[in-house]
Amino acid sequence: MTNNLEITLSTSKKTKPQPDQLGFGKYFTDHMFIMDYATEQGWHSPRIVPYQPITLDPAAKVFHYGQTVFEGLKAYRTSDNRILLFRPGKNFERLNHSNNRLSIPPIDENFLLDALKKLVEVDQDWIPSAEGTSLYIRPFIISTEAALGVAPSHNYQFMIILSPVGSYYAEGIHPVKINVENHFVRAVPGGTGAAKTAGNYAAGLKAQEVASDRGYSQVLWLDGVERKYIEEVGSMNVFFKINGEVVTPVLNGSILDGITRNSVITLLKHWGVPVVERKLAIDELYNSYVNGTLEEAFGTGTAAVISPIGELFWDTHQMKINQGQTGELSKRVYDTLTGIQNGTVADPFGWVVEVKS
Amino acid sequence: MTNNLEITLSTSKKTKPQPDQLGFGKYFTDHMFIMDYATEQGWHSPRIVPYQPITLDPAAKVFHYGQTVFEGLKAYRTSDNRILLFRPGKNFERLNHSNNRLSIPPIDENFLLDALKKLVEVDQDWIPSAEGTSLYIRPFIISTEAALGVAPSHNYQFMIILSPVGSYYAEGIHPVKINVENHFVRAVPGGTGAAKTAGNYAAGLKAQEVASDRGYSQVLWLDGVERKYIEEVGSMNVFFKINGEVVTPVLNGSILDGITRNSVITLLKHWGVPVVERKLAIDELYNSYVNGTLEEAFGTGTAAVISPIGELFWDTHQMKINQGQTGELSKRVYDTLTGIQNGTVADPFGWVVEVKS
Repeated sequence: MTNNLEITLSTSKKTKPQPDQLGFGKYFTDHMFIMDYATEQGWHSPRIVPYQPITLDPAAKVFHYGQTVFEGLKAYRTSDNRILLFRPGKNFERLNHSNNRLSIPPIDENFLLDALKKLVEVDQDWIPSAEGTSLYIRPFIISTEAALGVAPSHNYQFMIILSPVGSYYAEGIHPVKINVENHFVRAVPGGTGAAKTAGNYAAGLKAQEVASDRGYSQVLWLDGVERKYIEEVGSMNVFFKINGEVVTPVLNGSILDGITRNSVITLLKHWGVPVVERKLAIDELYNSYVNGTLEEAFGTGTAAVISPIGELFWDTHQMKINQGQTGELSKRVYDTLTGIQNGTVADPFGWVVEVKS
Repeated sequence: MTNNLEITLSTSKKTKPQPDQLGFGKYFTDHMFIMDYATEQGWHSPRIVPYQPITLDPAAKVFHYGQTVFEGLKAYRTSDNRILLFRPGKNFERLNHSNNRLSIPPIDENFLLDALKKLVEVDQDWIPSAEGTSLYIRPFIISTEAALGVAPSHNYQFMIILSPVGSYYAEGIHPVKINVENHFVRAVPGGTGAAKTAGNYAAGLKAQEVASDRGYSQVLWLDGVERKYIEEVGSMNVFFKINGEVVTPVLNGSILDGITRNSVITLLKHWGVPVVERKLAIDELYNSYVNGTLEEAFGTGTAAVISPIGELFWDTHQMKINQGQTGELSKRVYDTLTGIQNGTVADPFGWVVEVKS
């Protein structure tokens, strides 16, 4: 289906940043993918074009009513110079779930996977090769109809932009300190928490600021109904090893169905490590800390892959986990997942998808 | 403070639509107001310029993380050709509350009121004069920094656009049919429901679609915690007259502090009509319907001012209110408020603000 994909190559190439200056989401490549939607035409005019600004009417619905969804995944360069994507089909599948929740018309998942591969191929010189680096991929849809009035848009743009990103752990994997949020709520069942949409992230900024001011790098969210059950940490899913068993909050309609989360569960089962998805109350977690059975904690997401949690602050309680060090299982999961992504560890699950080049 | 406001007039004027074709939010005037923010400079470069597209990097944070707020108010042309704004100071005050929740830097309310007056003056020929018509005013802020990563933006744009709008009730004020939403949730305490931000509206689209498919024009939202207490209707606040007393849901942190809502409460008190802000459960409302004490129901908001509710559908119960007709009190509130706004009814509250022209 890529035969109707038009490609216009850039006549000039940008200077590429040094690998140690990459950071996250600061630099963008020479090209981008765009596709338009109009009610009468459906999705149409898929094209790869030079990276360029978007021009929108000030009344475009995305600015006012936030009808937008996005995804995030990465491309990796292997030591033998192949290019790998990690479970990209899952991202487009989830995008369609998000679309449904946000009243955005569905996209053709297979076609977009092909278009993404083509885009990565076009900008393959931008994929960094230093350890821990990768090419971050951001597919997103915005509502572009220029009309005020709260109703689904008649026009959309789907875009994919690419950003070379540095190692999340420039100085080696290290644990973070997390504040348990008691006041602000990220999402609630019946809301948009399970969709990857802009409003969820906007809602979380304030709590993040408060946590930062107190010296914590992220927020652990409790459920919005009972303010008791653990949901996510920052914009990651979260796992706890308690008395030899790994526990992660069950998908309840307000938690994002993370692809790294899903991969970690699959990996643990494959290893024979007990893992369970269930409701986990913050006071149960605190009790396990007090009685010494809380062994490890880590967040999971595309950016960091695994983010070990060295400290949790809840109410008046400071919980130092595994002496503030990265746990053994956390490290094993991190090494294995990043190894599969980089092509240095065998992939028994068929997760990696090669981009021909 | 308007002395640093730069004005660039449009060299060509658009053709103005006919009054009966206006609709809502479809046409925009010849000019707009823009002001920029950068961390180092604060808000700067306020200017009135020809209405024009916005050009943004595809990585602009507004597209991905929804950090944006807006307001809505109207300018009215009186029969003696004066131009009136309705409580505009309240809008800029609320904008700053929304800014705070969304981690957006505060704006100078007095300066922006002056800038708004100037913009309305520049585009005064666009204010329609037919009964029920007005000039809708949309101030909004978007986060413009081109960087992925969930954190408050370092750059913003504040804009005001203007749209001449038709009468909400072209064929006279008439009641609407409303579906009580049992599955989807708009907002929850600790979330962003009390702020006027894009994500709240995106979250409501799906339920709105479901209601439309069933022949209802709006949704009545229940609280997200107990799924029991009445919150808002569509994007309006809601009032019920039960046994001679007017009841509206108390502001609980997830309900928008509507300016029309506030004005209706003030007006009712001024008239000596009993009015109370409290929690109101949907089953209590249903019981009042069954025992015949539910006399009237109406929504309040800037677009419709007053929207009488003729029917509520909850679970399996169809509640026809006041025989599906506009209630006496609803009509009196509508006539008085719109009269004050249009300058045909005396304003004992000092609500209207004249734009000199």
